Amino acid sequence: MIQQEFPSRLLENVVTELSKLPSVGRRTALRLALSLLKREERESKALGESIIQFRSNIKYCTRCHNICDTDLCDVCADTNRDGKTICVVENIADVMAIENTSQYHGLYHVLGGVISPMDGVGPNELEIASLIQRVDTEDVNEVLLALNPNMEGDTTAFYIYKKLAGANVRITTIARGISVGDSLEYADELTLGRSIVNRIDFAK
Amino acid sequence: MIQQEFPSRLLENVVTELSKLPSVGRRTALRLALSLLKREERESKALGESIIQFRSNIKYCTRCHNICDTDLCDVCADTNRDGKTICVVENIADVMAIENTSQYHGLYHVLGGVISPMDGVGPNELEIASLIQRVDTEDVNEVLLALNPNMEGDTTAFYIYKKLAGANVRITTIARGISVGDSLEYADELTLGRSIVNRIDFAK
Repeated sequence: MIQQEFPSRLLENVVTELSKLPSVGRRTALRLALSLLKREERESKALGESIIQFRSNIKYCTRCHNICDTDLCDVCADTNRDGKTICVVENIADVMAIENTSQYHGLYHVLGGVISPMDGVGPNELEIASLIQRVDTEDVNEVLLALNPNMEGDTTAFYIYKKLAGANVRITTIARGISVGDSLEYADELTLGRSIVNRIDFAK
Repeated sequence: MIQQEFPSRLLENVVTELSKLPSVGRRTALRLALSLLKREERESKALGESIIQFRSNIKYCTRCHNICDTDLCDVCADTNRDGKTICVVENIADVMAIENTSQYHGLYHVLGGVISPMDGVGPNELEIASLIQRVDTEDVNEVLLALNPNMEGDTTAFYIYKKLAGANVRITTIARGISVGDSLEYADELTLGRSIVNRIDFAK
């Protein structure tokens, strides 16, 4: 898109800032900005304030590093949850995705990324040492590695697996297989192959 | 999408506010919000402030109703522009689109919408009276109606045309025809038909 001549510096400013958001180009940013003019001034104020408040006041759970408003997140603070199982995930969105399934009742540990030498992210940039410490100090039975099935995820899972080799915990990973609703015909051979190797009893 | 359980009220708040923007759903809003955490705090502050500043301090040109930072917009304030021609557009984005072509050197008049009985927008909700007044009081030769070629746009153009019938001005409208790069085969018959009826000399 050709660089536009903006009739107002305020408009140019808000378009520039909005277009820094992921997958928001200048044309979309302009559309978003102009949409603000059609709504009440207090609504734009609420939006602006919520962005500032969120970034300034958000806290990270001191135990699992999930985001929260207090020192301990709701999951860690919930005494009804199974404190002996820790699910290791890459980021906060993964926690929310797993919570949405209502199938997991243990605690979490958010790494804040995965090992990726290409991006300069090593184990020390992630919350791995604090995970090892939790396993050592808390009464943990199982560590469930729920990382994405790609090279970085697998590398990180293997690194953690090695680090926890001496600890007396069961280390598990989420099942790989054919997605519900997918057809075998179009599944990639690696996934289909794994789903056969790791086949489960039908009644299960 | 299922209503998500958010780990933080601040996050929920910013997602709710962001998802009020056009074509931003809750999933996109969550992705945008989490992307803020990966960037510097001052960047989120700049974004939030720019939204608030834009909505609170933006002004409308007292002459043409384009947005601007002062009482008179840059176009109206530019003495090099042809003050005898007024281009009537629906909104601010149209002004920017026309300015981008560098083919128009006159002034503008932003209606702030089009006549649409379905949406409860009548002539009195638009800047039509102020347009008539400009034609009456300023030294205007031509009013160029650059409204969108749909029912509301055509209705509005016809209404303005009728209102200006007594004034001694040339009333024009932008040419309808085959877009540059389009093929005749796929053009709709209305557009193709108009482009034949309104054919122009080849050398022009």
